[in-house]
Amino acid sequence: MQLLDGRITAEGIRKELALAVQERKRNGKKIPHLAAILVGNDGGSLTYVGAKVKACDQIGFESTLIRYDDSVPEDILLAKVHALNEDKSIDGFIVQLPLPAHIDELKITQAIDPKKDVDGFHPVNLGNMVLNLPGFLPATPAGILELMKRNNIETEGKNCVIIGRSNIVGTPLSIMLGRNANPGNCTVTLAHSRTQNLQEICLKADILIAAIGQPDFVTADMVREGAVIIDVGTTRVEDLSRARGWRLKGDVDFDNVAPKCSYITPVPGGVGPMTIASLMINTLKAMELKGK
Amino acid sequence: MQLLDGRITAEGIRKELALAVQERKRNGKKIPHLAAILVGNDGGSLTYVGAKVKACDQIGFESTLIRYDDSVPEDILLAKVHALNEDKSIDGFIVQLPLPAHIDELKITQAIDPKKDVDGFHPVNLGNMVLNLPGFLPATPAGILELMKRNNIETEGKNCVIIGRSNIVGTPLSIMLGRNANPGNCTVTLAHSRTQNLQEICLKADILIAAIGQPDFVTADMVREGAVIIDVGTTRVEDLSRARGWRLKGDVDFDNVAPKCSYITPVPGGVGPMTIASLMINTLKAMELKGK
Repeated sequence: MQLLDGRITAEGIRKELALAVQERKRNGKKIPHLAAILVGNDGGSLTYVGAKVKACDQIGFESTLIRYDDSVPEDILLAKVHALNEDKSIDGFIVQLPLPAHIDELKITQAIDPKKDVDGFHPVNLGNMVLNLPGFLPATPAGILELMKRNNIETEGKNCVIIGRSNIVGTPLSIMLGRNANPGNCTVTLAHSRTQNLQEICLKADILIAAIGQPDFVTADMVREGAVIIDVGTTRVEDLSRARGWRLKGDVDFDNVAPKCSYITPVPGGVGPMTIASLMINTLKAMELKGK
Repeated sequence: MQLLDGRITAEGIRKELALAVQERKRNGKKIPHLAAILVGNDGGSLTYVGAKVKACDQIGFESTLIRYDDSVPEDILLAKVHALNEDKSIDGFIVQLPLPAHIDELKITQAIDPKKDVDGFHPVNLGNMVLNLPGFLPATPAGILELMKRNNIETEGKNCVIIGRSNIVGTPLSIMLGRNANPGNCTVTLAHSRTQNLQEICLKADILIAAIGQPDFVTADMVREGAVIIDVGTTRVEDLSRARGWRLKGDVDFDNVAPKCSYITPVPGGVGPMTIASLMINTLKAMELKGK
């Protein structure tokens, strides 16, 4: 069994992007600038946005963090999105999800200019993904593909089972892994809460991807000997042995699954860092798509 | 074995739509108006567009058929698309594909206003489909779902295998059948030219859908006893016994597969009429989405 180490792979990507920034500087080109809007004080969201800002620093991207109290009215947030759409100094931006219940997430994500939608959540970008047209790929699926590519995981002709059909991971990932590309050309099965005989289906998988947010959902008896395992889950579970009182837990029962498989992503340190790396790749791409 | 008769099902839809038109008339509302652009004289395209115009007549929709010689320059065609986008009398329109080689199909389909894109080919409509947002569903996949729904084919929890990953049938259909809806909630596997062990995969299918355009590709030994078979193929094969010299052939070896399955679509008379019915449903929807 080999670890698919997202931290090391993401570190390699950051170094490449840092070189690209230096090259841009030498050529008098604009430095990519990512903005992030964070509403409220959710611990997970604070961590994710903090990691994104830090990645910008390491690479040499400019960044702007805009914070609102969780009582911010929807129209104020919408107005900020429109302002960022118009702001020529900002190349791409994200609104960290989830948002408070009184704000319509879809309305917000759809208000983002698709050309600055570096999270890849806008319908235009998802449609371009389906049609294999230029645009922003959603960050987590794109990070998973990048992780496989950079670790020489063969995908062509492989049976791939994805558990979980969310709009931001499972569903777009199923399309990206199935299309005629590299990575890609998998025979993808998308499983979900209504799937019957899940164990039987999973046992056929050369590549098994869990993205449901249920700790230890994938057990060893669901995994074929030698499979590649990608764990997208990051649930906080109580852990009183740690000062903060919790730790992150994936969707895969790592200890029992790891000995059976050829490759496996750890949690944390697998898909998470790759999601952030994808966001950075998209931010640079935002400039290239503009021809800048 | 029961035939899934697209002609009869489409006839029922046309009657419902005709009633909706009469209701609109009584209420002084606008009558839906579909326009179609046809370039050149391809026999298949002539037949399809003719059937669409005829369906409009039967329902009571207004229709406009715009024909160009196959030498028409791309910019003339684009200008017509823009004119139809602006024309308030036209509620929806299609550009019949394929187009001659000197015209960029993607450029044309992307120029269509998504609000008038009743074929559902525009990236915005495909993105809305992925996110389960209001918009136009691509006509052939939507027709297949409608055919199953109106013939009480249960989809929830079923294993569905789709062969062929085209942008207009296989790929969007895989998403539509997998999502949380009715019809939907299938566990979908999308197979294609790089798939290995296709026979084994097909034998697991409760619902098997062939959309590759290769006559007789699906043979009886690929079909599970009692499966539902949907045949999207319509290839013209030589048939000198007919005056026109050809007949339509599906992707399924009908004669040998039919005895094994619970339901099967004939070719012609299965998916084809449903595609046209979907286009009509979308044309009415174009008005409703506008709130007219």
